[in-house]
Amino acid sequence: MNEVTVGVVGATGAVGQELLQLFLKRKWNISQLKLFASQRSSGKIQSWKNISIPIHQTDLSILQKLDLVFLSAGSGISKEISRDIVAQGCIAIDNSSAFRMTSDVPLIVPEINSEAIKSYDRLIANPNCSAIIMLMAVAPLRKLGKIRRIIVSTYQSASGAGASAMQELLDQTATFLTDREKVKPSVFQHPIAFNLFSHDTDIQENGYNVEENKIIEETRKILADEEILVNPTCIRVPILRAHSESITVEFEDSAPTVEEVTSILADAPGVRLVNDAANNTFPMPLDASGQDDVLVGRIRADITNDKAINLFVSGDQLLKGAALNAVQIGELMISKGYVRSS
Amino acid sequence: MNEVTVGVVGATGAVGQELLQLFLKRKWNISQLKLFASQRSSGKIQSWKNISIPIHQTDLSILQKLDLVFLSAGSGISKEISRDIVAQGCIAIDNSSAFRMTSDVPLIVPEINSEAIKSYDRLIANPNCSAIIMLMAVAPLRKLGKIRRIIVSTYQSASGAGASAMQELLDQTATFLTDREKVKPSVFQHPIAFNLFSHDTDIQENGYNVEENKIIEETRKILADEEILVNPTCIRVPILRAHSESITVEFEDSAPTVEEVTSILADAPGVRLVNDAANNTFPMPLDASGQDDVLVGRIRADITNDKAINLFVSGDQLLKGAALNAVQIGELMISKGYVRSS
Repeated sequence: MNEVTVGVVGATGAVGQELLQLFLKRKWNISQLKLFASQRSSGKIQSWKNISIPIHQTDLSILQKLDLVFLSAGSGISKEISRDIVAQGCIAIDNSSAFRMTSDVPLIVPEINSEAIKSYDRLIANPNCSAIIMLMAVAPLRKLGKIRRIIVSTYQSASGAGASAMQELLDQTATFLTDREKVKPSVFQHPIAFNLFSHDTDIQENGYNVEENKIIEETRKILADEEILVNPTCIRVPILRAHSESITVEFEDSAPTVEEVTSILADAPGVRLVNDAANNTFPMPLDASGQDDVLVGRIRADITNDKAINLFVSGDQLLKGAALNAVQIGELMISKGYVRSS
Repeated sequence: MNEVTVGVVGATGAVGQELLQLFLKRKWNISQLKLFASQRSSGKIQSWKNISIPIHQTDLSILQKLDLVFLSAGSGISKEISRDIVAQGCIAIDNSSAFRMTSDVPLIVPEINSEAIKSYDRLIANPNCSAIIMLMAVAPLRKLGKIRRIIVSTYQSASGAGASAMQELLDQTATFLTDREKVKPSVFQHPIAFNLFSHDTDIQENGYNVEENKIIEETRKILADEEILVNPTCIRVPILRAHSESITVEFEDSAPTVEEVTSILADAPGVRLVNDAANNTFPMPLDASGQDDVLVGRIRADITNDKAINLFVSGDQLLKGAALNAVQIGELMISKGYVRSS
């Protein structure tokens, strides 16, 4: 791998921390690593490899000189600085929703639509976690027939709301076990310990919440299919860091057989079959946590529709749902020669 | 209410304990209460009202002389003794799956199909918890048009697997918080703390598990509609005692409007609307726990199908999903004069 200089904006967050570990695990050849966070965290020291890296407040003049920058500090900051970061040749991979639906910004899951990146692209958007995890299992099925409609109910982990939400789940659970009357929600509006609730984003005019509308719109863009229909219901569950999804995939014509679906998913990159009916063992968030692959199982015909099949998936929200996908986008850009080398 | 003599088989279980509380709460006029459990629990004393009731091993000669018996000790015991219990005029309400699909045994949700009980019926089956909770919200919608198909993904609580499973969820969660390596599943095959998994029943030949097939078959029987299609995915989540379900209801013809659905559900007995989009407040299992009503919200058009609408429900698995529905069946039988009065 070519030597690159790398910046991480939002380095102290849950996704930022995963990015730092992935650079090591995937043996990135980083000559200079610059870390940025909000004022609250600036001045702190991050140990990485054998070195201590100071965390700075976001500084555009430093960011512009880097080869590759990962943004994971919310869509507000991304909107503010992403275009300026890439103005002088730096590549930026944005984990926020700020530019996902912007027409000149590719929205990429490397296993699915790497061809959507053009040589002149400098700013790349990393999709919504639920959309990535769903599409890792659904996109390969297009080889078996045109997909018309996806019905999905999610079981989303606390990690999607950040490190503080994960901590709230742990702390609130401990409180619940000793005195459930003392549970006081803080990060989430509603109690998360031994509870679940409709996703913590606003309901929009069409009756779907922001998270659901992201899945609807981003699926179309990633699959480059303006006609594909998605009916999502997004639910937050008391799980730490992996999202699960119950998915019904409806094809234009007769559905492929369970054997065909199983065979395609067995060979799909970034997917691991966990489909052991005899031992009642299927994808579980505890098994998906810390894993790169999205786990897929409960593959079965939809007995109510001969054009449809059902699936159940679990994928690590912080890895394939966020940091890993972003790092893979970076690797793709480097391997294509689109990232300048300092 | 007429004075009746009542027996509970499985009195020490999670559902048995709820039955005892419901008799008090709903002011049953019980002249004699006989409690039965397995050998392990026999000899124990149950306090109820101001009296102490000994728990006996199941004894057919005593049961046959009672007016009304509730069975909640598993389908094995139900199969063995239910027919004999009712042979001499006693009424039995069976909470197990033993007779639900038997043609001469009515399967009853009082708000939905009370007319299915005939004057000569002595043995009545109480439906599966997930089926009851789903149908409480779905059945009233038949007033708005013929329902063709239901797609449902469940979020099922530990209580469905009994009191020991609820205790396992609590104990295992405490273990996880101190040392997650020490988590050792016992009641459930897989870890339940901060985890979820495909329902703990066997996968059958059609690819659906036993729980899913119960929902499919019982829905047809309760709605007296052999054509209605149900596509369920049943998932166990780390929740104590209320089931939630993400439901898409597809009509034969154009779907009713959100306003029509909301209006029908607002008036439906045993249903409570929790549908506050402005405050992002919808049905949650913590709110449904201990409540008689099934909570319904997230009422919205399915943007992928103009014949369908979406719902999200939460209902107490031990109450409307089991003990409350059984007690309501008993009340119905008493009010119809079908229960002999000692």
